Amino acid sequence: MKLRAGIDLGGTKIQAVVVDEQYAVLGQQRLPTPTKGGPQDVADAMAEAIRSAATEAEAEPAELSSIGVGSPGDVDDETGTVTSARNLPGWEGSFGLAGALQDELGPAVRIGNDVTVATAAEAELGAGQPYSSLLGVFWGTGVGAGIVLDGKPWTGRDAAGEIGHMVVKIGGAKCPCGRHGCVEAYAGRGAMETRARELVRKGEETNLFKIMEKRGRERLTSGIWARALVRHDRMAQRLVDRAIEALAAGIASAVNLLDVEAVVLGGGLGVRLGDPYRQRIEQAMLPHLFADDRPPPLLLAQLGDLGGAIGAALLAADGDRR
Amino acid sequence: MKLRAGIDLGGTKIQAVVVDEQYAVLGQQRLPTPTKGGPQDVADAMAEAIRSAATEAEAEPAELSSIGVGSPGDVDDETGTVTSARNLPGWEGSFGLAGALQDELGPAVRIGNDVTVATAAEAELGAGQPYSSLLGVFWGTGVGAGIVLDGKPWTGRDAAGEIGHMVVKIGGAKCPCGRHGCVEAYAGRGAMETRARELVRKGEETNLFKIMEKRGRERLTSGIWARALVRHDRMAQRLVDRAIEALAAGIASAVNLLDVEAVVLGGGLGVRLGDPYRQRIEQAMLPHLFADDRPPPLLLAQLGDLGGAIGAALLAADGDRR
Repeated sequence: MKLRAGIDLGGTKIQAVVVDEQYAVLGQQRLPTPTKGGPQDVADAMAEAIRSAATEAEAEPAELSSIGVGSPGDVDDETGTVTSARNLPGWEGSFGLAGALQDELGPAVRIGNDVTVATAAEAELGAGQPYSSLLGVFWGTGVGAGIVLDGKPWTGRDAAGEIGHMVVKIGGAKCPCGRHGCVEAYAGRGAMETRARELVRKGEETNLFKIMEKRGRERLTSGIWARALVRHDRMAQRLVDRAIEALAAGIASAVNLLDVEAVVLGGGLGVRLGDPYRQRIEQAMLPHLFADDRPPPLLLAQLGDLGGAIGAALLAADGDRR
Repeated sequence: MKLRAGIDLGGTKIQAVVVDEQYAVLGQQRLPTPTKGGPQDVADAMAEAIRSAATEAEAEPAELSSIGVGSPGDVDDETGTVTSARNLPGWEGSFGLAGALQDELGPAVRIGNDVTVATAAEAELGAGQPYSSLLGVFWGTGVGAGIVLDGKPWTGRDAAGEIGHMVVKIGGAKCPCGRHGCVEAYAGRGAMETRARELVRKGEETNLFKIMEKRGRERLTSGIWARALVRHDRMAQRLVDRAIEALAAGIASAVNLLDVEAVVLGGGLGVRLGDPYRQRIEQAMLPHLFADDRPPPLLLAQLGDLGGAIGAALLAADGDRR
């Protein structure tokens, strides 16, 4: 039986899985993404996560037939490098991630764009299975999208899917990318945390950072946002409302352009906040949808938190077949 | 030699051509789109335009091997009907346009979406020839887009390409479609005229309507806007600036999502205002482009005013081959 590893490299967490040929998860490990250091520190943490997932699957990393990586930033599948992964520490330049992991662990490593592989996983194994055209929207530290048209991923010149940087408010809020009025400027968890810290500095009250400290975190994770919402924290509610408004406008704009059959919502916040918030986004899209007599369903990612890592394993399997 | 007719049904004008098998234009006629009445009146004007173009090509309409139509609204190619063509008079419902034209003129009639056929024309015969992925943006009474990916039109569930209804300003100006903050709310010539009339009612000055009256028109055509700009009309400049800002944000958003190789700019205003304004839009896109190290070229439609009609003739030829 062939075992493969898939690893999803996010701005907040590193999620590794080891799967069998039917993509059943035999081992998994989740580690926080290093917030300091540089690409090699991230690669070390990734290798550790894969080792640990392999151990749970009762295998050695060297026994894996291949390893797939879903990465943010500009991914070059040919050379195995990742460039300008802005949500990762010290990763403005280019780093040979595939080589570093292969040197460390042994098996061949293939790298794809994080949202593209997560969307492929939902299309092939998850909520997107019934549809031949699909937009996968990943709402986390950043906001990204994967596009499937006629059953195949559409990646453009390798940089398609930047739904987080569609403009929903000309002259609007500053985005972590440096531009203004992007979806991510309102809906990215990174931007939401920055905004929350600003509001606290201005004297506004919130329990967000108390919950963070109590849970021993340094960042406002999706779980912390979810807890604050449950406790009716006003600032959390307001920032999530703003995020939903921007996200809904961006998704509706993408649907107006592409007219896909369905949209799958994933990502840390998407999965953690779950169905009530999925419903709110679906409602908030309606006023912006041009063909509003047949809105595409907005579906929660079925593979949940593991979709990115399972999609990376799909990519590894695709590499094996080449 | 087979002759075909193609007709582009716009909110302001009806443009008919008769072409040979190499798509050389042998006859053409342009008529204003009726502003009163209903779909049958529009169909009558279309038949008249085709008759006149055929006469110029020294042919009878009955001798044409087929007729293609590029139409706004929801087009059903199977049944030959057009529904909710909101920029046309009395066309909220459904009308059997193919049947009406075929009854009147004789040859088989095939209908496609106006911007889809115009984009196909630019892709096959015009500025888009070197590229396999392309966004065709048509800036006229409304703002629409055609999408070509991997050399083939992408039409989604038949309603793709609504770039004019992508949201660029949440809570922004009211669009002729009834929604808020759409690209077309700022950049559609229809919305621009509505806004100009409002400003005049509020006491602001402009030469736009004087030029209109002098030229015996009832609407602010692209030529009138161009003339007012040449004369440094302040209101015209301000409204065109606003249009460029919205159009650039919308096109950049579409590029961020799709990462196409090139964008072709056509439509009445796009063609009439020409290169200086194309350059301004290209510049205004830059601050919003995510992959700004390699912006796709923004090219003027090479087939100019006739692209839609020639694209409709391409559609007719495609129908003949079925």
